[in-house]
Amino acid sequence: MRIGVADTTFARVDMGKFAVDELKKHASVSIERATVPGIKDLPVACKKLIEERGCELVMALGMPGAAEKDRVCAHEASQGIILAQLMTNRHIVEVFVHEDEAKDARELAWLAERRTREHAVNAVKLLASPQALTREAGTGQRQGFPDAGPARE
Amino acid sequence: MRIGVADTTFARVDMGKFAVDELKKHASVSIERATVPGIKDLPVACKKLIEERGCELVMALGMPGAAEKDRVCAHEASQGIILAQLMTNRHIVEVFVHEDEAKDARELAWLAERRTREHAVNAVKLLASPQALTREAGTGQRQGFPDAGPARE
Amino acid sequence: MRIGVADTTFARVDMGKFAVDELKKHASVSIERATVPGIKDLPVACKKLIEERGCELVMALGMPGAAEKDRVCAHEASQGIILAQLMTNRHIVEVFVHEDEAKDARELAWLAERRTREHAVNAVKLLASPQALTREAGTGQRQGFPDAGPARE
Amino acid sequence: MRIGVADTTFARVDMGKFAVDELKKHASVSIERATVPGIKDLPVACKKLIEERGCELVMALGMPGAAEKDRVCAHEASQGIILAQLMTNRHIVEVFVHEDEAKDARELAWLAERRTREHAVNAVKLLASPQALTREAGTGQRQGFPDAGPARE
Amino acid sequence: MRIGVADTTFARVDMGKFAVDELKKHASVSIERATVPGIKDLPVACKKLIEERGCELVMALGMPGAAEKDRVCAHEASQGIILAQLMTNRHIVEVFVHEDEAKDARELAWLAERRTREHAVNAVKLLASPQALTREAGTGQRQGFPDAGPARE
Repeated sequence: MRIGVADTTFARVDMGKFAVDELKKHASVSIERATVPGIKDLPVACKKLIEERGCELVMALGMPGAAEKDRVCAHEASQGIILAQLMTNRHIVEVFVHEDEAKDARELAWLAERRTREHAVNAVKLLASPQALTREAGTGQRQGFPDAGPARE
Repeated sequence: MRIGVADTTFARVDMGKFAVDELKKHASVSIERATVPGIKDLPVACKKLIEERGCELVMALGMPGAAEKDRVCAHEASQGIILAQLMTNRHIVEVFVHEDEAKDARELAWLAERRTREHAVNAVKLLASPQALTREAGTGQRQGFPDAGPARE
Repeated sequence: MRIGVADTTFARVDMGKFAVDELKKHASVSIERATVPGIKDLPVACKKLIEERGCELVMALGMPGAAEKDRVCAHEASQGIILAQLMTNRHIVEVFVHEDEAKDARELAWLAERRTREHAVNAVKLLASPQALTREAGTGQRQGFPDAGPARE
Repeated sequence: MRIGVADTTFARVDMGKFAVDELKKHASVSIERATVPGIKDLPVACKKLIEERGCELVMALGMPGAAEKDRVCAHEASQGIILAQLMTNRHIVEVFVHEDEAKDARELAWLAERRTREHAVNAVKLLASPQALTREAGTGQRQGFPDAGPARE
Repeated sequence: MRIGVADTTFARVDMGKFAVDELKKHASVSIERATVPGIKDLPVACKKLIEERGCELVMALGMPGAAEKDRVCAHEASQGIILAQLMTNRHIVEVFVHEDEAKDARELAWLAERRTREHAVNAVKLLASPQALTREAGTGQRQGFPDAGPARE
């Protein structure tokens, strides 16, 4: 199993390190890593990891800032990541942590690590045990903060 | 007839279960199911169901949250689902239930089930009896809440 | 001349009926009709009318609701319709009537009929007499409500 | 040199006429003209001018209205024009004059003519003397209203 | 190594000049330059630099204005630049300086030069020493204004 990890120098937490660590815990996996300046550089970086470096799935890690301009950047990056998936028929698991989701730098670091690790588990399931995800369908899973849980009639 | 059902672990209701149940009531249908973490993972999941697992139509089921960021996610997912359809010339019936459409968890569960079931009927019509949809053209059909009905001069 | 007419069951006026009626007044035309649940299903329906049913041009008819979510749906549908045109090199004449353009159901029905009929005339001109459109270039034409007319220095 | 001119019947000024007039002043050019109802019809019209009528460059002329819905239309049209360029590797010079840029109809007509003529000059430079544009790089050029000029440290 | 530099006549600072100067300091590089009127002309200009003039990477330099319309233009340009990358599997390093990021023309000129130079260094790293970027992963790098630095638990 070969998984790509794409991350940025803009992020204030080394999310790539946590992704690699967690992926290796859950699967015998070969990692290809690419670091780019910012989140808008991620879509093509992910596509190159798939098409030029043979990855079956890629994790795209980024930390958008809190300003309005940053939100627009994140939107553009997300659209590009979706398009890269449609062009390659491969999953790219987007892990974005918005700076304004956390109340301070400490919580930001905690959240970035936890969300990255939980999505690394999702990435392995997507490739190796998709039926495990179907067992969790509609159960209100969240990555980082606590799960919302199921809603019942 | 082979129909795909793509849903998420993020949703708080197992919409996929209702889709499968309703589809089977209305047609002799083979189901392919794929569950992904969130709605932004749906576009490529639907495209893979069509191109790699032979589905003639896919239902894309999701439950976006109520925050501004969630609305942007839903927008990105919808754009990707439209693009996946254009790339494959297949219908993907999007069934999104926004958390803020319902006043509480109970209504949310009710709405998710009802909208999913009504769209499952639409999915079967799209494949098996498109003329049935033309008979309903311009009649103000809604899925979940009551129909708006026709406007008359 | 083969023209497609794509419309929805969501609309509260049978715009497809008016389109077919008006097209037949102005040209010897063969009509292919497809009805889908909502406006987000229109892009692929139009593309299929072009690529699978041989239409040279398609009219895409829809009636977005008045809520913010409906405006986003209309935006997504419009983007998809533009993309479908670029993928096929065929015109798709979008006729959207927003529910909040009219003050009541009666005006809505009037507006939907009138805009559809005027755009049906445009559709025939695009295919059969493009020079007629060039004679109207820059004259402030509107479909439905009165023309704005030319601005003069 | 073959240049396409695409314009609309929606615009309140015959921008196409000014474009053709100005282009002919600056180059020995063959013009292909296509007029469509509105700005959302421009992307495919431009692509057809390039691919079906042999244009090396197209000018896309439009006049979006002042309402919020019109701004969304302009955004969709612009995205489509960018995509048409990427699909053809040809420049499409977009000349949009927003109705609310001018204080009255008279200024609107003046602005539409002036911006169209200045962009026609740009179009010729893009095809025939790209180095002329590089000499103007970073000098704060504007089309229509006065230039902003360079910013200096 | 062949790098493209695409810039605009709209910008109020000759960012292209700084890009070329900085690139030459860090690598033995052949430069291809293309100047276009505005930022919405950049996506196809970059794609042509890659596909018709053999560039392995392009820097896309622009200076969006401060009005709402300008922000929309920048968004459209960025989407196009991301798409151009996905269509070519090449990095395009976007360097946009928004006029309202600086308090006056002097700071604007300073910021444009500094951000362009820092991103030129990134461009060389992307091509020649990607592992240098991975060493900076998650360290809160910024281009122009001071770095944000890492967040720690």
